[in-house]
Amino acid sequence: MHMGLVGLGRMGAGMARRLRRAGHQVTGYDPSSEASVASLAALVDALPAPRHIWVMVPAGAPTRESLDELARLLGSGDHLVDGGNSHYVEAAPRAARLAEQGVDMLDVGTSGGVLGEEHGYSLMVGGSEQGVAAWRPVLEALAPSPEKGWAHVGASGAGHFAKMIHNGIEYGMMQAIAEGVAVMQADGEPRVDVPAALHAWRSGSIVSSMLLDLTEEILGANPALSGVGHEVADSGEGRWAVAAAIERDVAAPVITQALLERLRSRDEARFADRLLAAMRGGFGGHHVPDAS
Amino acid sequence: MHMGLVGLGRMGAGMARRLRRAGHQVTGYDPSSEASVASLAALVDALPAPRHIWVMVPAGAPTRESLDELARLLGSGDHLVDGGNSHYVEAAPRAARLAEQGVDMLDVGTSGGVLGEEHGYSLMVGGSEQGVAAWRPVLEALAPSPEKGWAHVGASGAGHFAKMIHNGIEYGMMQAIAEGVAVMQADGEPRVDVPAALHAWRSGSIVSSMLLDLTEEILGANPALSGVGHEVADSGEGRWAVAAAIERDVAAPVITQALLERLRSRDEARFADRLLAAMRGGFGGHHVPDAS
Repeated sequence: MHMGLVGLGRMGAGMARRLRRAGHQVTGYDPSSEASVASLAALVDALPAPRHIWVMVPAGAPTRESLDELARLLGSGDHLVDGGNSHYVEAAPRAARLAEQGVDMLDVGTSGGVLGEEHGYSLMVGGSEQGVAAWRPVLEALAPSPEKGWAHVGASGAGHFAKMIHNGIEYGMMQAIAEGVAVMQADGEPRVDVPAALHAWRSGSIVSSMLLDLTEEILGANPALSGVGHEVADSGEGRWAVAAAIERDVAAPVITQALLERLRSRDEARFADRLLAAMRGGFGGHHVPDAS
Repeated sequence: MHMGLVGLGRMGAGMARRLRRAGHQVTGYDPSSEASVASLAALVDALPAPRHIWVMVPAGAPTRESLDELARLLGSGDHLVDGGNSHYVEAAPRAARLAEQGVDMLDVGTSGGVLGEEHGYSLMVGGSEQGVAAWRPVLEALAPSPEKGWAHVGASGAGHFAKMIHNGIEYGMMQAIAEGVAVMQADGEPRVDVPAALHAWRSGSIVSSMLLDLTEEILGANPALSGVGHEVADSGEGRWAVAAAIERDVAAPVITQALLERLRSRDEARFADRLLAAMRGGFGGHHVPDAS
């Protein structure tokens, strides 16, 4: 297929290379890098009808602006994918507006990071059957194999909803691994050789996982995490997952706690900790530590 | 090697078969099943010196009683493994007592469940270098491959400590997956095809893991979890992990929360929930639900 790809960042560039290796022709556009064409209008002009354009730019304003402009440029029979981490609530209204002008839009949650170029991406697809049929050769090429790692998970919004939940689970799994390793490496008897334990866990254990593989690689290269700061970013998917859980009256305490740990990791003011220290001083006469 | 294996339950029986396929001679003993010998004394008599005996019985009293009796039966040069989920604090004192009579004991945390027979087990080994050297052919046969899935992680107790942390991480990962799937399948828009999402995640995604594979198999066979009760057992390893984290002054909130969710899953009295309902009624005049 000859398709357009908007966004040639780490994810998009890897996807373009994987698609080209599979025999697809990819015309790329990215405002901030060397791309095949100079604008979205030029991208649309460069593609044969019906056009197929996959948008893979950062969630939020960059994605919204790209999709808004493409909505003005595309016409009946064209196909669009929002492959970013957009909030799932935006997909169905946008798909409905685009459908009025004959443009089909899928929302595709995409996981795999920079490893995806080699191993294939996991793709959660929301939208119409006809959209899935149109994009099938591309989905099969991006996935680890044609039958594995991608699925049509529901109507518009379901792809981004599934990706949001995926990321919430990822937060919880990452936090569990990080906590366990932190307990092992803390002072106390018996001492545990942490890289050796991770090596044992990677093969055959119940916790074997891509995240554990990554953890062993990180600590193998840098056991003391020298130069790594403690602030953990969050991309928004985790907080949407927590909000969706509450909206559905489902308690998701571990996913929620994992998000809260990320907020806490960036809380330099530590007002609650300092207030607790002051309260202890107030009722117990305990020493209140000075601000450091 | 001709070795003894005490405990022919699901784990032990699978290990015996895997060891025999690798060319080892395994004399098994289990009080509650058909075994090669009728008693621990007969097992010791059946083995060539120096004897190698791997104990793989349930943690707690069964393991302690087996190890106590073997301590009386074994002598200088013999080798023992505690392969169960014993509390890590017991390993070093026991290994020291056994060393006084010339018996070497390793503590080996063993993961892999019933899948281990085919794929190999993950083995975390604590104890002496000489013990590891003596058991190396067995460790290499039980692991997924001679170089993968097993490691000497420290002195006595380190093997069971690493297994305890492994299980704590397992609790957190399981809870994160369970919560995420629960949010997806709860009422709300958009509907997500849960088995399809799990299929997509299994290959190429950041959450791909043995536990996710298991989750897809479970929900593929029984999407509504018909006949599955809500009580989640805990084997003790999770609570020891939480206690060890606190003892080391390390906050492990997600592992802790995952343990608490298991306690909550079995709390039929729900006294705290009922007290909250009564308090809401008290200060707000809200309806207090009748006990159901």
